[in-house]
Amino acid sequence: MEYLELNGTKEGLSAAVDDMWVLNATYLVFYMQAGFCMLEAGVVRAKNAKSIIMKSIIDTAIGSLLFWALGFGLAFGNADKASNPVIGTSHFFLINYENLSFFAFQWAFCATSITIVSGSLAERVHVTSCLVYTVVMSAFIYPLSAHWVWSYNGWLRLIGVNGIIDFSGSIVVHIVGGCIGLVGTYLVGPRIGRFDSESGKPKPLPGHSITIYTLGAFIIWYGFYGFNTGSTLGISGSGITIASRSAVTMTIIACASCATTLLAIKIKSGKYDVVKSVNSLLGGLVSSAAVCSLIDPWAAFIIGCVTSFVYLGGSHLLIKLRIDDPLDSSAIHLGCGIWGALSVGLFSTQDNLSLVLKRPTEVYGLFFGGGFEQLGVQLLGIIIVMAWCLFCASVLFIILKKFHMLRIEPTKELMGIDIDSAGGPAYQWDN
Amino acid sequence: MEYLELNGTKEGLSAAVDDMWVLNATYLVFYMQAGFCMLEAGVVRAKNAKSIIMKSIIDTAIGSLLFWALGFGLAFGNADKASNPVIGTSHFFLINYENLSFFAFQWAFCATSITIVSGSLAERVHVTSCLVYTVVMSAFIYPLSAHWVWSYNGWLRLIGVNGIIDFSGSIVVHIVGGCIGLVGTYLVGPRIGRFDSESGKPKPLPGHSITIYTLGAFIIWYGFYGFNTGSTLGISGSGITIASRSAVTMTIIACASCATTLLAIKIKSGKYDVVKSVNSLLGGLVSSAAVCSLIDPWAAFIIGCVTSFVYLGGSHLLIKLRIDDPLDSSAIHLGCGIWGALSVGLFSTQDNLSLVLKRPTEVYGLFFGGGFEQLGVQLLGIIIVMAWCLFCASVLFIILKKFHMLRIEPTKELMGIDIDSAGGPAYQWDN
Amino acid sequence: MEYLELNGTKEGLSAAVDDMWVLNATYLVFYMQAGFCMLEAGVVRAKNAKSIIMKSIIDTAIGSLLFWALGFGLAFGNADKASNPVIGTSHFFLINYENLSFFAFQWAFCATSITIVSGSLAERVHVTSCLVYTVVMSAFIYPLSAHWVWSYNGWLRLIGVNGIIDFSGSIVVHIVGGCIGLVGTYLVGPRIGRFDSESGKPKPLPGHSITIYTLGAFIIWYGFYGFNTGSTLGISGSGITIASRSAVTMTIIACASCATTLLAIKIKSGKYDVVKSVNSLLGGLVSSAAVCSLIDPWAAFIIGCVTSFVYLGGSHLLIKLRIDDPLDSSAIHLGCGIWGALSVGLFSTQDNLSLVLKRPTEVYGLFFGGGFEQLGVQLLGIIIVMAWCLFCASVLFIILKKFHMLRIEPTKELMGIDIDSAGGPAYQWDN
Repeated sequence: MEYLELNGTKEGLSAAVDDMWVLNATYLVFYMQAGFCMLEAGVVRAKNAKSIIMKSIIDTAIGSLLFWALGFGLAFGNADKASNPVIGTSHFFLINYENLSFFAFQWAFCATSITIVSGSLAERVHVTSCLVYTVVMSAFIYPLSAHWVWSYNGWLRLIGVNGIIDFSGSIVVHIVGGCIGLVGTYLVGPRIGRFDSESGKPKPLPGHSITIYTLGAFIIWYGFYGFNTGSTLGISGSGITIASRSAVTMTIIACASCATTLLAIKIKSGKYDVVKSVNSLLGGLVSSAAVCSLIDPWAAFIIGCVTSFVYLGGSHLLIKLRIDDPLDSSAIHLGCGIWGALSVGLFSTQDNLSLVLKRPTEVYGLFFGGGFEQLGVQLLGIIIVMAWCLFCASVLFIILKKFHMLRIEPTKELMGIDIDSAGGPAYQWDN
Repeated sequence: MEYLELNGTKEGLSAAVDDMWVLNATYLVFYMQAGFCMLEAGVVRAKNAKSIIMKSIIDTAIGSLLFWALGFGLAFGNADKASNPVIGTSHFFLINYENLSFFAFQWAFCATSITIVSGSLAERVHVTSCLVYTVVMSAFIYPLSAHWVWSYNGWLRLIGVNGIIDFSGSIVVHIVGGCIGLVGTYLVGPRIGRFDSESGKPKPLPGHSITIYTLGAFIIWYGFYGFNTGSTLGISGSGITIASRSAVTMTIIACASCATTLLAIKIKSGKYDVVKSVNSLLGGLVSSAAVCSLIDPWAAFIIGCVTSFVYLGGSHLLIKLRIDDPLDSSAIHLGCGIWGALSVGLFSTQDNLSLVLKRPTEVYGLFFGGGFEQLGVQLLGIIIVMAWCLFCASVLFIILKKFHMLRIEPTKELMGIDIDSAGGPAYQWDN
Repeated sequence: MEYLELNGTKEGLSAAVDDMWVLNATYLVFYMQAGFCMLEAGVVRAKNAKSIIMKSIIDTAIGSLLFWALGFGLAFGNADKASNPVIGTSHFFLINYENLSFFAFQWAFCATSITIVSGSLAERVHVTSCLVYTVVMSAFIYPLSAHWVWSYNGWLRLIGVNGIIDFSGSIVVHIVGGCIGLVGTYLVGPRIGRFDSESGKPKPLPGHSITIYTLGAFIIWYGFYGFNTGSTLGISGSGITIASRSAVTMTIIACASCATTLLAIKIKSGKYDVVKSVNSLLGGLVSSAAVCSLIDPWAAFIIGCVTSFVYLGGSHLLIKLRIDDPLDSSAIHLGCGIWGALSVGLFSTQDNLSLVLKRPTEVYGLFFGGGFEQLGVQLLGIIIVMAWCLFCASVLFIILKKFHMLRIEPTKELMGIDIDSAGGPAYQWDN
């Protein structure tokens, strides 16, 4: 009820407008759930569409409840006071917590991270496994990563002059989601028929609706404007300047990544590839999350062009390693997330970084003469968060495997998960 | 042109920001039309998809024009002055009315209420009947309900200490829409094949696209952030505090309702049920409309869990009574709407209610020691609005039935309404 | 970094809120890309869905990069100083440009204009031709039109007392896009089978998904709230008054146009026509762009009713002339765009126009006694912009035709562009 007292004063209006900004961004980020749901549904085969939709619903509903109950407290409890750099310990169930717009924004971020995983695991795991990893991610893995990188006393924020910088979550959201998905898809193994049993050559298992898939990507793009520009946590002070810059640079990165891929594939193969172009667009958005507020537009263009090759390289590497990631989620979220987080250490200008940090800094992007320190801190942070996710996800998925809760039986996989677990197919065309 | 004079002053900016908040919320609520259209299209059979889309277009376009011409004046005319508690009588066609953002917000609400009805009547009524009930609802039934509950001199607002409280329309929008739909679907009778002609047992008539259906639900969820938080009519003063609370509690209610249903059905049947889970999510949003601004997060969780059983019970009851509501619209909008409106009398805290009323009150939620009064007022209001809708809808649909404008002929129903009334099917896969 | 200095002052907050308004509108306008993509995908045959989606991605990604690099500088370079009335010459690549929210908004407008063209050219041109016209439009044709009409020193703004008035781009966005599409579709010729080879009678080639098509239209409608109300470039001063008016009148125009068409066709043919009704809704949105801020609600209703007949007449004329425009894009965007731009000269009230111009004016709508001048200026502007587009588009498409880059071979057209150019079909139902 802090605004009541400020009612009618300039400070009150300014604080209210800041909260409004964060709330509107929150709505956009929650709407990204629709995007991920459509993206994943469109790229799987029709026989698995309903169950992957079910997974989207599970991770949204269950994950949100867990993050409200436990996750937020672990991530942002005691954020204001000097306290535990490893884990937050207050405000569970939002008890005695008043900054609800900030909570809501973080909430939507956690939901985004979890939803990435079901893409990597698509078309061959039990729906119930989604229930389990949703609980573990929202109540444990994600909150600790968020605490380390984003809480005022998170230990990765205390390294070096600036601490680790992850403006909107290339690390916390996308590396975490992408890395857990990668571990899962590696342990589950490829879908039946994805690699030729004799030659080992990959065979395409095309999704059932490119239209729905692309719609999902466009919705994610739209939601990313909230994702990236809401992270200013307001528009007063320098907030709107940073937000405007972020909106512009993220669009350039995404478009440059998409354009590079579509032209590169056209030149190489003579065809246009919708899925890879759209994935590159998404990869650009992922890269932009960490770095969008810190760069000039021309640097965004370069980061975007490189993102295209990071994605294509990651996608190629997955196939080389016989890892079957139906949505290329790990190439997009882990690969491009790493690139985005590193590019903070390469392309941040002194002016932009000082504005975001709200204090002058002498440590910034390598290419602008800011030295190697920030790049090193970013690299260290990426390694630590990845190690954390690799460890947790390995334990989690190995236990699930032990209890036969991970992979469905081959006959059911061939028949489709929908008939087995979701009461019938997603589509009925002839009635 | 009030802002011109205030140009550059704090009051001017504050008023402008409030209007901006309402406008942005209006956009979101109008976007819910896309959600309802997809929800309804996805859950009907392919042969009826085009005509139910047509109904969405009709209720949006025709309903909006009627509410502009007549409905708004009946609902909110003379709202500022002491006048008629039953009906508004000014500002038809927006003549001499300046507060256009408020009008637009109410406009979008009316459109939402009307669009609920076509779900209940799906797959067996003439498209033209939609034209008729749209006119009657937007120009008569809805506006009077809105006047009684929301206008400053509406008679249901004058009952008891606080008057009836329906923050964002569990009663005015959802009970009205759900109740009219229920009357309609009862009078129309079930779709051919819905209940076995001998045993009376229900037979599923699954919709043609769960993907489109779920997309619709996600869009509605997104739009509900505008629906529920725009009702603060601004962010200045305590507006943003109330809005933040509403956004958080509505999300908890929706997620708790959805999670309860999906786990309950999984435990009972061993399957995951997308449609019922999504319907429970929607039911949670409906419940939240009345109460979201008045409760603490933990109460939201309880309200959400109960919502799940209200929806499932309502859905079950419809089948028991051999009422065929293809979208479960009446279970969602009427059932959960009633629960949401009642929960105001149960869970409202004194602090939250005083903040929303902008004055201290001694009458609040029963469970917090606020006595039975508010619960009684809510119950009375629900009964009166339902009686009003039952009466009007009965007269309306009986007249339509008399003139053979309600139910299409059996052969056309079997063939699908699209070929008969909409010039061909919605889909063409082989060309 | 202008806000930094203003930090904490009223002016700073006011400027920040204005930029926030523009940014939020920008997000909505970019989201319209999703709408156009779905609209176009739904209305083509399934065999061409993937390639038209590819075109949407190309025009978004490539067009955005070109507009950033060149287009914006040509359109709005040196806008503040007295300079060239024909072409802007600064701020290429955003060098030395700080007003990034304004840039972003204009960026999204350019993307909208380009995406219109692919509708007219659907189902029979090479994907690569889209690449070419996207480059030419975003880096040349569109920016010059925008400079003439919208830049402070654009030569069409210097004609007459008020200059040409195109509030949100009926001319700059829709006439430009629609006109270029019309030239293209005329030069490409009709799709095989569209007109009977002997009688010349039109034969319907229905799209594959009315559901996806309608979804696209609803998304465009939603995005149009940003498109039309963001053009106030802020909410301070009279901004929010103008924005509220625009939101209301655009909705009335769109609904009136849609309702008129659906009733007219029902009365004439006994059927409901979803596609034509939705196209009329879109036509209403297009008309509203120029005029929404300048009129009273009842005038909006009249403009909307007329829009319906403008669209239907345009669509009919195209068929008469044996021009095959698969989405009726030229009837919608060119036809209704012309009507919207002219209606500025007919229906603008003195009060509204003065408010938008921020100075009193004696020249306004003919029907309100404001004389013929504004109507004449609008007509002149329309003719000039159309002549410019006709000239550029003719040269462009004739060159493309010369180099066999325009129309695909008949066998490939019959087979579908997706298999030829996009690596396979958009849909896979049986797996």
